[in-house]
Amino acid sequence: MNESSILQKILPIFHAGNDVAVPPGDDCALLEFGNKFLLAAADQVISNVHYLVDTAPELVAGKLLKRNLSDIAAMGGIPRWALLTLAVKGRSDEWMIRFFTGLEACAEKYGVAVVGGDLAALPGELDCASLTILGEVELEKVCLRKNAQAGDFIMVTGSLGDTFHSQHHLTFEPRLKEGRFLAENGLTRCMMDISDGVAADLPKLLTESNAGAVVELEKLPCRNNCHWKNALCDGEDYELLFTVSEPNRQRLEQMWQFDTPVSCIGRIVENKETVYTLNGTAVPNLEMTGYEHFNS
Amino acid sequence: MNESSILQKILPIFHAGNDVAVPPGDDCALLEFGNKFLLAAADQVISNVHYLVDTAPELVAGKLLKRNLSDIAAMGGIPRWALLTLAVKGRSDEWMIRFFTGLEACAEKYGVAVVGGDLAALPGELDCASLTILGEVELEKVCLRKNAQAGDFIMVTGSLGDTFHSQHHLTFEPRLKEGRFLAENGLTRCMMDISDGVAADLPKLLTESNAGAVVELEKLPCRNNCHWKNALCDGEDYELLFTVSEPNRQRLEQMWQFDTPVSCIGRIVENKETVYTLNGTAVPNLEMTGYEHFNS
Repeated sequence: MNESSILQKILPIFHAGNDVAVPPGDDCALLEFGNKFLLAAADQVISNVHYLVDTAPELVAGKLLKRNLSDIAAMGGIPRWALLTLAVKGRSDEWMIRFFTGLEACAEKYGVAVVGGDLAALPGELDCASLTILGEVELEKVCLRKNAQAGDFIMVTGSLGDTFHSQHHLTFEPRLKEGRFLAENGLTRCMMDISDGVAADLPKLLTESNAGAVVELEKLPCRNNCHWKNALCDGEDYELLFTVSEPNRQRLEQMWQFDTPVSCIGRIVENKETVYTLNGTAVPNLEMTGYEHFNS
Repeated sequence: MNESSILQKILPIFHAGNDVAVPPGDDCALLEFGNKFLLAAADQVISNVHYLVDTAPELVAGKLLKRNLSDIAAMGGIPRWALLTLAVKGRSDEWMIRFFTGLEACAEKYGVAVVGGDLAALPGELDCASLTILGEVELEKVCLRKNAQAGDFIMVTGSLGDTFHSQHHLTFEPRLKEGRFLAENGLTRCMMDISDGVAADLPKLLTESNAGAVVELEKLPCRNNCHWKNALCDGEDYELLFTVSEPNRQRLEQMWQFDTPVSCIGRIVENKETVYTLNGTAVPNLEMTGYEHFNS
């Protein structure tokens, strides 16, 4: 059983209320609340799954919050509040204080207030930390996986791959400014974050958009000159994957104001297949599943 | 180290934004969002801490959601949405489907939509499930721990104690209707839920209200004729503890429309000490710490 297959069984179990503008399946849920729209997502980190047990607690807390911030970025939103639950055993008071101090430092940096949570003891010697992020976005600016159109360029921010050895999976910057800029300026309405690798995440966007893609492997921005297979499959990039129309690509290149690079890695096509090419030649039978957090 | 002592160190670490009307420390945070106020809380359940490992998965999921609903009830609020993270190992597909089906059944019963979450694998053979509940309440109706006044009666809903052997800790009804009724009719502005036992929870209310109490032990509504010590200390009651003024107590008795009993167990006093009496005689040196979820 892996995460994708069990999610396919689980997601249809839940009903969505009338006030749920975007149900589970995108990077965040979009919830109508009074005269505004709330973004909500939850994610977790577990010792020896998402970080080594001797990782500095500030980095663990930061990774947990930033993973969630990356989901807000992917919707073109602004983060507001976070709630945390932490279950630990075998951690000192000092570890706990450092964890929460690191969480607050990261929260302040990105304009988030930590407003609630719970602490519990685990029976086993490990940590399990869960965080819910709340944010906001305008209904007319929200970026969804389903909005890709045939002909759109497929873009990514930053570099991809080699995320574990480089420590990128701990030290990354969630692309909040970049995501908000794209949404605010109407440069895209189709975005997600890359957490499981392009090879695993792009198909989710294509399925929702009922489309296919041609991906040019030589255009992948490879971190530390890693192989394109790593850029495609390592996961934990926490970069933005988005599409832009031809006129918007020109606007994007003129308007882009960030140090973060933006790369075009391919195009959306009508045909629902996804073709990977290397210097113009199709690369067949690419077995790319990306990173699965859930393998029991 | 226990939960209370570590929380005393952790809570001051966090800043509260201007939009946080009630910061961590009450049953929920109260967040200003557009023209309305959002309630938010997070809680978790862990196998062999909060339930035995062979408990029916529907009951586990229900307990997790209902613990959180009890926090919404305690604020006088209405629940809206939930987000879940689940980390498991050694659970079958069937267990997972039953867990999520049970969660949805419970969510539908109480008018909640499950709108997001995450699944992950744990390295150890245990389950760790975390849930964030979102709800709403009017600013002028919200019930807070700090609002007790000297002279108020101390009230509890339902019965207390013997919560583990009776299975009450799994089968309880969160007091949403009762809590909302009290808030909506202005019968109280001071409420919390009893999760750690009156002996551990009442002092939190008294500290916030800068007050003391006289508790008449013989008035505790003891589940299954359990000893008053159990009613006071067992925890996991998920009943409402609230205060009412003298005129409101009369209104409450006239207006109360639920099968759930309401008992007066004492009064708020100005003197910050808490005195426990049994048939008029003070019971000294009552060592009552209630239930601590966090003992590492």
